[in-house]
Amino acid sequence: MSDAINRAWTMASRPTGEPKQENFAVEESPIPSPKHGELLIRTLFMSLDPYMRGRMRPGPSYATPLQPGDIMTGEVVARVEQSKSSNYTVGDIVRSSIGWREWAAVSDHSVKRVDPSLGPVSTAVGVLGMPGLTAYHGLLDIGQPKAGDTLVVSAASGAVGAVVGQIGKINGCNVIGVAGSDKKCNYVKNDLGFDYTINYKTQEVSSELKRLSPNGVDVYFDNVGGPVLDAVLDNLAFKARIAICGQISQYNSDDIPLGPRNMWALLRTQSRAEGFLVYAFEQQHEISRARLAGWIKEGLLKYKEDIVDGFEKAPEAFIGLLRGDNFGKLLIKVSD
Amino acid sequence: MSDAINRAWTMASRPTGEPKQENFAVEESPIPSPKHGELLIRTLFMSLDPYMRGRMRPGPSYATPLQPGDIMTGEVVARVEQSKSSNYTVGDIVRSSIGWREWAAVSDHSVKRVDPSLGPVSTAVGVLGMPGLTAYHGLLDIGQPKAGDTLVVSAASGAVGAVVGQIGKINGCNVIGVAGSDKKCNYVKNDLGFDYTINYKTQEVSSELKRLSPNGVDVYFDNVGGPVLDAVLDNLAFKARIAICGQISQYNSDDIPLGPRNMWALLRTQSRAEGFLVYAFEQQHEISRARLAGWIKEGLLKYKEDIVDGFEKAPEAFIGLLRGDNFGKLLIKVSD
Repeated sequence: MSDAINRAWTMASRPTGEPKQENFAVEESPIPSPKHGELLIRTLFMSLDPYMRGRMRPGPSYATPLQPGDIMTGEVVARVEQSKSSNYTVGDIVRSSIGWREWAAVSDHSVKRVDPSLGPVSTAVGVLGMPGLTAYHGLLDIGQPKAGDTLVVSAASGAVGAVVGQIGKINGCNVIGVAGSDKKCNYVKNDLGFDYTINYKTQEVSSELKRLSPNGVDVYFDNVGGPVLDAVLDNLAFKARIAICGQISQYNSDDIPLGPRNMWALLRTQSRAEGFLVYAFEQQHEISRARLAGWIKEGLLKYKEDIVDGFEKAPEAFIGLLRGDNFGKLLIKVSD
Repeated sequence: MSDAINRAWTMASRPTGEPKQENFAVEESPIPSPKHGELLIRTLFMSLDPYMRGRMRPGPSYATPLQPGDIMTGEVVARVEQSKSSNYTVGDIVRSSIGWREWAAVSDHSVKRVDPSLGPVSTAVGVLGMPGLTAYHGLLDIGQPKAGDTLVVSAASGAVGAVVGQIGKINGCNVIGVAGSDKKCNYVKNDLGFDYTINYKTQEVSSELKRLSPNGVDVYFDNVGGPVLDAVLDNLAFKARIAICGQISQYNSDDIPLGPRNMWALLRTQSRAEGFLVYAFEQQHEISRARLAGWIKEGLLKYKEDIVDGFEKAPEAFIGLLRGDNFGKLLIKVSD
């Protein structure tokens, strides 16, 4: 190989508050050789997602926390460079959870084939991957929207939120997107077809919701938690559904922040808040992925990628993601 | 009538914080005469319940707030003293939502007949009335317990909580009751058959839950909100259900208290929190009431009444209820 060194980003130390460059370190090693039944894969695109901040925390989560020195968690789209498996040949494109790495030797059972006919291969970790499927199942299975419902989605221009709002439109909802800049708001309204937007940095979310949806919010797809969730709880419709997908507003907090004790809102409106993980719907993923791909082909579902070129830029891009600096699905382009 | 004066308790002024005697006033009027289709009813037992504090608040709720001068809300068990309806005769026992009143003339459509064969008539506003039905539907329809589940119930010796825990036992659950005194804890364990208890005033609820149920809490029937809810959120099992019935810990607060932002717990465990009102299940009430009555006859469901004698004692008893002073279903005995 011309590129004889394999690089990986590790969590060098556990961050307190917002992660810093110094919390990450590059670990170099030789490019591995695949054993029988294994593949040597080379990362094309690395997905950066907010949940990764959760893995850097020591507390209880749905997955094992990283320890200092561990390679950062994550899924990549990769190309098979050597195959010692009869199931894959050189040049096949796969998804694999090898973390922030350039190369890896992996069991052929641990990867999933990417079908390039569905769209650009980068979408396998975006609109046709974990973020798109999270949007699909969280909205449809947990949020259970009906035509005519008012749907609110936070982080509306993000990899998940943008898909949620568009599936809401496909299902006949009145869609309000909450985002952190006028540029993002304009994008989801003008390019993606959301009905209304609220810039939570410059507008008062609760009173805007009251104005835009006087009969209340039927479905809230919550990516952020915190004060935006509070504002929605102030404005719930009867029998509303809150799909709790993420709480990014507090991922960088070391202590649990304080907020109003507003579970009364669920009682008053006989509403439901429910947390979910995309993996709970794994047996349906192939069907839902095909449906997402179909909507893209019909022009009903658009997506935006925010591609940062260069493996070495991953920590910087990830720190920006947690700040809301990115715009669209954040990917690191690692090789051609 | 020997008792020529009809008394009613009004909300004289809106309380701030804990209600005081001065927030209530007696209003006297003549005993009314029923018109065609009406009944004159005389209160035997008046039910005092925590939700009434909610009616005294000005903010949005599921029911219209009281205004100063309005008669306090509530349901009573009453005897028909005069009947101008072909549906009722003198001596019939009925339930009616006439509020804190001794006498009323009411349409025969507005009352519900009480079947004295089911139990003492006082139970029509207790274990066989709104509190018992709240326990039944909140636990079984919202909490959806399965045999082997760990069920936690707060305000465990109260009118609702005591029934919840016993229905949990009937359904094969491991039941942990949270209450505010050793006397209440001993009662629910020794007399009602709960498996474990936690005195939230003297014990650390979160660590006790961890000790008593290392695999987590499957169902939480929440009557109180606040720090007890936080402790349960720290200990949720996978796919747990929280039935939000009441938030009595904050009913006396004028501002919404602050607490930890812990919705993450729902995400992490893929759990659900859902508010409900007993009225949502109204069409099933006759069936569920019969089932509760059957369990009482079989000795599987016990109840305790805390009967305060004298209409004039209602405000004092109600203030005590909000403090947790009562022990069992609180009733005011108004006449024989």
